[in-house]
Amino acid sequence: MARFVHEVHMRWSDMDAYRHVNNTAYLAYLEQGRVAMFFDRFESFSSGTVIARHEISYLRPVVYHPTPLRLEMWVEDVRAASFEVHYEVFDGDAVAARAMTKCVTMDFDANRPRRLEPSEREALRGYADVDGR
Amino acid sequence: MARFVHEVHMRWSDMDAYRHVNNTAYLAYLEQGRVAMFFDRFESFSSGTVIARHEISYLRPVVYHPTPLRLEMWVEDVRAASFEVHYEVFDGDAVAARAMTKCVTMDFDANRPRRLEPSEREALRGYADVDGR
Amino acid sequence: MARFVHEVHMRWSDMDAYRHVNNTAYLAYLEQGRVAMFFDRFESFSSGTVIARHEISYLRPVVYHPTPLRLEMWVEDVRAASFEVHYEVFDGDAVAARAMTKCVTMDFDANRPRRLEPSEREALRGYADVDGR
Amino acid sequence: MARFVHEVHMRWSDMDAYRHVNNTAYLAYLEQGRVAMFFDRFESFSSGTVIARHEISYLRPVVYHPTPLRLEMWVEDVRAASFEVHYEVFDGDAVAARAMTKCVTMDFDANRPRRLEPSEREALRGYADVDGR
Repeated sequence: MARFVHEVHMRWSDMDAYRHVNNTAYLAYLEQGRVAMFFDRFESFSSGTVIARHEISYLRPVVYHPTPLRLEMWVEDVRAASFEVHYEVFDGDAVAARAMTKCVTMDFDANRPRRLEPSEREALRGYADVDGR
Repeated sequence: MARFVHEVHMRWSDMDAYRHVNNTAYLAYLEQGRVAMFFDRFESFSSGTVIARHEISYLRPVVYHPTPLRLEMWVEDVRAASFEVHYEVFDGDAVAARAMTKCVTMDFDANRPRRLEPSEREALRGYADVDGR
Repeated sequence: MARFVHEVHMRWSDMDAYRHVNNTAYLAYLEQGRVAMFFDRFESFSSGTVIARHEISYLRPVVYHPTPLRLEMWVEDVRAASFEVHYEVFDGDAVAARAMTKCVTMDFDANRPRRLEPSEREALRGYADVDGR
Repeated sequence: MARFVHEVHMRWSDMDAYRHVNNTAYLAYLEQGRVAMFFDRFESFSSGTVIARHEISYLRPVVYHPTPLRLEMWVEDVRAASFEVHYEVFDGDAVAARAMTKCVTMDFDANRPRRLEPSEREALRGYADVDGR
């Protein structure tokens, strides 16, 4: 299956005093990608996961423009109670950032990790990166 | 009674590409002032008001520095189901912005405005500006 | 001429602990509207104006959704060295907020207001609200 | 030498619809720590570094409170043209997050990495973690 693609809109005020998009803004871009990938589709994901870790590498500075950035996303390392979302953030044809988010599935009532449900496991399989470059 | 004074910390990333604190950041500063003024003191205020209106005038640009801005705050125009919070935002000795927030007391269960309770009315009286300049 | 229309994308993290878009987020939405209205068109506006004042009234709470909000914008009260941008923020068919920004044209080298140039005055005329409701 | 300690103030609106501080807010907290650590002290750092990478692990959720979070920071892996800043973010006595930022020293005129200057190297030695737990 192809990567999941989401267009994300910068805000002019995401730029900082160096006239580049501030590094802190990118996590909000990644969040918009995850929301698009999961929230509409899988109620249990949106209500039953927490962010355990982010890794993000900045490859080139980005200057605000009204056209959106393009996120390409896929899923790796699906485990008993966690999975990873990987991202490439494209500014035009150039990769501006690469990132990874580790999500842990939670039972919030018991306040502890819970096993992925079969339907979740099946859904995540659809986001495996089989056309990665 | 004296004005309520609250020190609010800027963030470096509040600055925009013009190297000034972006106008959008000030509403977060005002919110920090209201939280300090109300949340700890009056449970009903924090859980039972909505923001109906802001007015804010920017008098001079602010450049990030690690020392906090000083908010001076007072209450005006206490009515049946609303009141106004007024602010002066000081950067050192200079007034950088003046602002006003109209708060409406709400009954969220019924989703409509509710009358101020006597204890709320009494509390707000303590924030009347009797030493305004 | 018709109102200027701009679609602005919320972010999931614009919501606060009350599960509504926080009041502070709207000024960023208005900024996106002004950027779309002015930056591409009039270099002098983008490099030579400051925000002197905002007024914003919140008419109904907004919950994040992936479809954009719609800003309808027009210009009023064009003066020697200032003009007002007015906004209606639509969430679907409902007006969620009404707002006004007073912009002052600046000579940044001299650090004082400057008169609007004839080309700016002409451009602003195109944004007069002749179809306001 | 002891770790560098910086107190960072949350904002109420850093909380998201789950009533926890949103994961995206932490990078702004880290930035405030770096600004305090470097900007006042070393002009070349503030004007001549870029963020190449962040890694951040979230250990427990944080709910807004008016008292600040405490960042403990130290420097590792000083190389020819880069160094790492490490962080532990304390909410009271508990570690809420651990993080690392890789900073690359840049010659912005030539738009390429530059070697750390001896004075920078000396300054960073003062932030080595000799009392790490």
